[in-house]
Amino acid sequence: MRGKLISFEGCEGAGKTTKLRMLKEYLEEKGIPYLYTREPGGNPVSENIRAVILSPENAAMTPECEALLYAAARVQLLHDVIEPALAAGKLVVCDRYVDSSLAYQGEARGLGQDFVRKINSYAFENYLPDCTVFLDIPPERAFDRKHGADKNDRMEREGLAFHNKVYAGYLKIAGQEPKRFVRVDASGTKQETFEKVLSLLQSRGIL
Amino acid sequence: MRGKLISFEGCEGAGKTTKLRMLKEYLEEKGIPYLYTREPGGNPVSENIRAVILSPENAAMTPECEALLYAAARVQLLHDVIEPALAAGKLVVCDRYVDSSLAYQGEARGLGQDFVRKINSYAFENYLPDCTVFLDIPPERAFDRKHGADKNDRMEREGLAFHNKVYAGYLKIAGQEPKRFVRVDASGTKQETFEKVLSLLQSRGIL
Repeated sequence: MRGKLISFEGCEGAGKTTKLRMLKEYLEEKGIPYLYTREPGGNPVSENIRAVILSPENAAMTPECEALLYAAARVQLLHDVIEPALAAGKLVVCDRYVDSSLAYQGEARGLGQDFVRKINSYAFENYLPDCTVFLDIPPERAFDRKHGADKNDRMEREGLAFHNKVYAGYLKIAGQEPKRFVRVDASGTKQETFEKVLSLLQSRGIL
Repeated sequence: MRGKLISFEGCEGAGKTTKLRMLKEYLEEKGIPYLYTREPGGNPVSENIRAVILSPENAAMTPECEALLYAAARVQLLHDVIEPALAAGKLVVCDRYVDSSLAYQGEARGLGQDFVRKINSYAFENYLPDCTVFLDIPPERAFDRKHGADKNDRMEREGLAFHNKVYAGYLKIAGQEPKRFVRVDASGTKQETFEKVLSLLQSRGIL
């Protein structure tokens, strides 16, 4: 039986890394076979693409170029890592996936969701997540909590106005696909948020 | 007045580099303002993408990933280099362009021309060449003339069967768009072929 595919989305500083670490500990404790992967990256080819995307020396990169590089890294990750894990019946947990492209490139960069869906047609047609957890916290509060952005990461260096557009993009997707793309209030403590994530995944029959 | 855009296509070893060098000398002698560029590459971001595409360490790259990387490098080249040159009224001469993606990824890799057109929609919709010169020589004869492939280039290392599919792809495009995509017999001497190229470009009002 094909495994389930879930993804975690959120603005910079929403707490994805922490909640994913807690989820991994939970899965290991329960003995649930899973594969964790992050975008962009997760295999040698995609890590090379990741380096091009995130390098501050590539500040002149156009939005179309950026969107195509994310799509390239993603399709390689699907072939090399996600497809074999799903075929082996594992739960696949993605730190960012197609909705990041919709929110960042489609909405915040202004390319439109149609363009993003076209260049990511392989993922959208074959590997839409069974459930996407959106850790919902406005960018301003998230950056406060994180004590600012990582200056070595071209995406994090974008200003607050950009990250507010990303956030608005995520809310739009939540409106479009409320069944798959689920908002989880991430303004509380780590433990509170993690318990909301757990009960969401349990209610969907994923855990 | 917007400048003209021309591209040169052909299999590995068809003699593009030599004919392009001869064309550049001709343009300089005549004082015709031009810009020469090569794909993939031609600007810092695209050169970084080129390194990922061509590195033999990325042999596991999937056809979709490869096609998306070429499209990413191309859209950056358009924005940074080709658009400004055309706006300045220059003749833009491209060493490989969209037809390479149609022939290599669309036909030889089997992704289909539709996929290639979708991910390259920016180029196809806004910057189709005024004329494409296809240096026509079958791969077997081309490799003989070149004394074999470059072992440090992932595309050239592909076998003869692959390059024959590329060649068949080019012939298909020539059938689809005979007015834009023009076959020039490249089996003669450098000078003979170059004179055919010149008279083609003159007959089209480009030179």
